[in-house]
Amino acid sequence: MTAPRLDRGQRPDGADFPDCKRTFMEFNVLPGARAPYGIRNGAGPRRAVAGMVASTYVSGAESEGAYTLHMLTGAKGSGLPLLSHSEAHVTLYVLDGALELVLDGQRYRMGRGDSALVPAGTAYGFVMTRARTVLMAYATATALDSLLAGAPYDGFIPAEDDATGPADLLKGDFPGTTVLGALPEGTDFAEALTTLPETSVPYVLEAGMGERLLVADQLFTFVAGNRQTGDQYLSVMTQGPQGDMIPPHKHLLHDELFFCLDGAMRLKAGDELIELAPGDFCFVPRGTPHAYQFLRPFTNMIGWLQPGIFEPFFHTLGDPTELTRYPQTPAPFRFDRVIAKLDELDIVPLGRPPEAGA
Amino acid sequence: MTAPRLDRGQRPDGADFPDCKRTFMEFNVLPGARAPYGIRNGAGPRRAVAGMVASTYVSGAESEGAYTLHMLTGAKGSGLPLLSHSEAHVTLYVLDGALELVLDGQRYRMGRGDSALVPAGTAYGFVMTRARTVLMAYATATALDSLLAGAPYDGFIPAEDDATGPADLLKGDFPGTTVLGALPEGTDFAEALTTLPETSVPYVLEAGMGERLLVADQLFTFVAGNRQTGDQYLSVMTQGPQGDMIPPHKHLLHDELFFCLDGAMRLKAGDELIELAPGDFCFVPRGTPHAYQFLRPFTNMIGWLQPGIFEPFFHTLGDPTELTRYPQTPAPFRFDRVIAKLDELDIVPLGRPPEAGA
Repeated sequence: MTAPRLDRGQRPDGADFPDCKRTFMEFNVLPGARAPYGIRNGAGPRRAVAGMVASTYVSGAESEGAYTLHMLTGAKGSGLPLLSHSEAHVTLYVLDGALELVLDGQRYRMGRGDSALVPAGTAYGFVMTRARTVLMAYATATALDSLLAGAPYDGFIPAEDDATGPADLLKGDFPGTTVLGALPEGTDFAEALTTLPETSVPYVLEAGMGERLLVADQLFTFVAGNRQTGDQYLSVMTQGPQGDMIPPHKHLLHDELFFCLDGAMRLKAGDELIELAPGDFCFVPRGTPHAYQFLRPFTNMIGWLQPGIFEPFFHTLGDPTELTRYPQTPAPFRFDRVIAKLDELDIVPLGRPPEAGA
Repeated sequence: MTAPRLDRGQRPDGADFPDCKRTFMEFNVLPGARAPYGIRNGAGPRRAVAGMVASTYVSGAESEGAYTLHMLTGAKGSGLPLLSHSEAHVTLYVLDGALELVLDGQRYRMGRGDSALVPAGTAYGFVMTRARTVLMAYATATALDSLLAGAPYDGFIPAEDDATGPADLLKGDFPGTTVLGALPEGTDFAEALTTLPETSVPYVLEAGMGERLLVADQLFTFVAGNRQTGDQYLSVMTQGPQGDMIPPHKHLLHDELFFCLDGAMRLKAGDELIELAPGDFCFVPRGTPHAYQFLRPFTNMIGWLQPGIFEPFFHTLGDPTELTRYPQTPAPFRFDRVIAKLDELDIVPLGRPPEAGA
């Protein structure tokens, strides 16, 4: 492993990427089309809704109607009433605070790192239970764009005089969403899963669990795969130590969303080098050359990939593991197995050829 | 408020601090004396103990035996057995994952942002309940230096073959600590407090709660004050939006520990400017000129101040509030009230005089 360089030298000097501009790509402005851009923590276009601030990371305009990504930041008591989406599958990922999720008639406590999958047609809703709760809501189709289209808002946390809450959504009319009523009360809690279900059913997954694969010194953890999303998308976390840039490549048929959870990372996207801190995001649409590098001794990111056709890549490159953290002794980097199946996987290697089986 | 500059210009250019070297102070090395230094997230000197990695942020050598600060990172099942300290008061602050704390015969669930105070002589212990749990342990005296003095360890997370756990501490002999036995089992959980107790009793405090004060656009939240620590130290969080550097100053009689929780911050310490990301830390001993600036729209830090003589400063400068988040409309910045009581407070303003009552 590369020795940690923690105190200096973490800024990109561009020497190893002479083709990169090292400029800043557009941040915090949605381009309205499938083009690379970034969002700094919580700083996408914002609206006030149901006691929360909804910051849009991806709207239907960027995904051509295929999916959306929002950050929801709220105070105690804010959240969503009981509702269901006709078409949208939703994955929730909690970043801070805690909430109570009602999902398909069960009640769950969720905290940092816990995730939930809500298949289309499933009744769900949640109430935030801490002074500050933050979660990411990824959804197929565009129902969440409509549901979260509250009043434009300049702040990053709810205003001190915000008196709205989930009840304010009961009277609205939202395309793709049926509002079912107030969130039921309850004191009995179901347990989160520690393994993924085999089919597309509603579930809450405990932080750090899910299907795991080892690739060199990195651990990949699926919190949702094709079996769970009805072949619609993948949601996968990648954690590892400070290390080298992975081999640059591009995909022709699927988009990749990068969201930094812990530590810091450098991203090559198109001809730019950017750095992401926790909460920061980069949209890498299909066709965009890219690569990433972890800059801190514990770096963790979550990605959403749509459509889910890239799942076989992970199983080709990685090996199943029971570990729940990256290993101190790296596993082999079996990019040779990817090269051998290039015609079956949606990946085009770029730049210097990676060493096989290193 | 200053308009957010999120996409560029976040690096210090030094123009407004011509006296600052803009070099990097020593990071990740403990100086062994009361001198300014920094620790990057988890990268203090590390030891493997009880299934956890203990990263030392402050040892007794830096505080002349007055206090210590450690980051504990562990996997499910790691933690501390039931024990008590003869002299040390302990404040725990959870950063990631979750744990079950047994404190004075009660059992608590704790997640990100929850804190606990353990007065000297109180029986406590905990077991981590998520794949990755991280907490900060601040303690007076040096009992935690002794308790956490496991084998030196290069990694930042527990090794994949680490088979140790809380039981391994049952057979040790640790100055200042009495090991009482295995952590009792239990399924009944007590509720965390939402207000501070009036005296130095054991408690768990819910994330974001505690005694709160407004100062301009920032919210100060005490998770422990002199009444709770027996006049030994303060533990106070400060959250706010991106803004200007606060007025530079120094303290003559107390040390200040800065730990970044969310967002990013710039710190002037001595004649250097540094930046801190979540998990990063700076030790500002008594006598060191310093100031801080928040760089992200939601930045939050926690500080430990020892001894606790600076508590009246916060009540002089701030106004009590029921808010649990920083306000969109700033409160007055009443530094004039501090100036009027300078001879009673341990603060020496430096540089340009701040505007009063702005």
